[in-house]
Amino acid sequence: MTDFYKEHSKVYVSVDCIIFGFEANKLKLLIGNRRMDPGRGEWSLYGGFVKENESLDDAANRTLRDLTGLDNLYMKQVGAFGAVNRDPGERVISVAYCALINVKDYDNELREKHQLKWIDVEKMPRLYSDHNEMVRKAINLLRRRISTEPLSFNLLPELFTLTQLQHVYEAILGEEIDKRNFRKKIKTIDFIEKTDKIDKITSKRGAALYCFNKEAYDDDPYFKL
Amino acid sequence: MTDFYKEHSKVYVSVDCIIFGFEANKLKLLIGNRRMDPGRGEWSLYGGFVKENESLDDAANRTLRDLTGLDNLYMKQVGAFGAVNRDPGERVISVAYCALINVKDYDNELREKHQLKWIDVEKMPRLYSDHNEMVRKAINLLRRRISTEPLSFNLLPELFTLTQLQHVYEAILGEEIDKRNFRKKIKTIDFIEKTDKIDKITSKRGAALYCFNKEAYDDDPYFKL
Repeated sequence: MTDFYKEHSKVYVSVDCIIFGFEANKLKLLIGNRRMDPGRGEWSLYGGFVKENESLDDAANRTLRDLTGLDNLYMKQVGAFGAVNRDPGERVISVAYCALINVKDYDNELREKHQLKWIDVEKMPRLYSDHNEMVRKAINLLRRRISTEPLSFNLLPELFTLTQLQHVYEAILGEEIDKRNFRKKIKTIDFIEKTDKIDKITSKRGAALYCFNKEAYDDDPYFKL
Repeated sequence: MTDFYKEHSKVYVSVDCIIFGFEANKLKLLIGNRRMDPGRGEWSLYGGFVKENESLDDAANRTLRDLTGLDNLYMKQVGAFGAVNRDPGERVISVAYCALINVKDYDNELREKHQLKWIDVEKMPRLYSDHNEMVRKAINLLRRRISTEPLSFNLLPELFTLTQLQHVYEAILGEEIDKRNFRKKIKTIDFIEKTDKIDKITSKRGAALYCFNKEAYDDDPYFKL
């Protein structure tokens, strides 16, 4: 193999996955105890090294699939983290990705096998290396995008009530929002569709169930909530 | 040195700088002909390899300083680009950064020494590797942020007219905006301050010059334009 750049040095590159879920009106994060040295036992995101013949996105998808058993998840790159001493073991540059999943879709056996747990983002412990900063940046990214990208639906079951949808917004934004204004805006958005089904579990009187119509969104992806 | 991760492979990591300027009401991009193999002679962004004892941000700052002679520029990470064959020479993962500078601040001798030129982003040629995609992502990042972050001032001289400011918005958004609405909103923004100076170069009748008050912005950084 040729080596055009041999005067330069190489580094390890890893991916770290920030997996958000939504449960009991709270934004949750999946973390576990690190199972390798250095830092064994510390709270940590779940990550992996990028292989020689694997793109960054593929490495993130593989890591996420190993962890969740789920494919085609909503995933966004948060950014590259490259401080010299960020990893106490070696020089490692890490690219953080965030994924949004519906907690109920996630296989609890797999969660236990990996010894992971869902924690409240508001009660996040000190995580390994710069992982707290990765999570902070990921939340900022969600906050900036939630009003113009249909990302909240990834945290909800296929059919959801408007109250559930409002709680997702509130959990990501970290603040209460006005119910009347919220519903007024939702009504102007074509791709949030009322179905003829009724939810009688979360509401005694029964609340209308809605769904996200992806085709309608693709037709006219502009919205501002 | 210990090697905790020696079963994994290392890769080259580079940074690429997307340098935007503003001139004659157009958003400009600084590009040059690549001066190394492979791809020698192709249009390219200006980049460099990350050194062993240098953070990603430091590598980007160094590259930018080499190129422009300027320090403390407005700079944002655009993202990591990691397709396996993105570089025809070797496996290289590149982290793109974008910077905004005022074209007039940039030393023309330095530009000529590096054999670079300002081009219209609307008339961008085919660039080396995935550099066109990097530029496209950087423009999307500016578009998403221009209405809530004070980034446009980095493209303007210290004192500017409201017409110049409007042209920066139009150049980044790629569309005309309504002058009356724009001025009405500008009036509500405390950190855009009218000075007692008048510009008689771009306007015969004389246009009031404004400045960005960073202290006022830091005091109350929330705005929506």
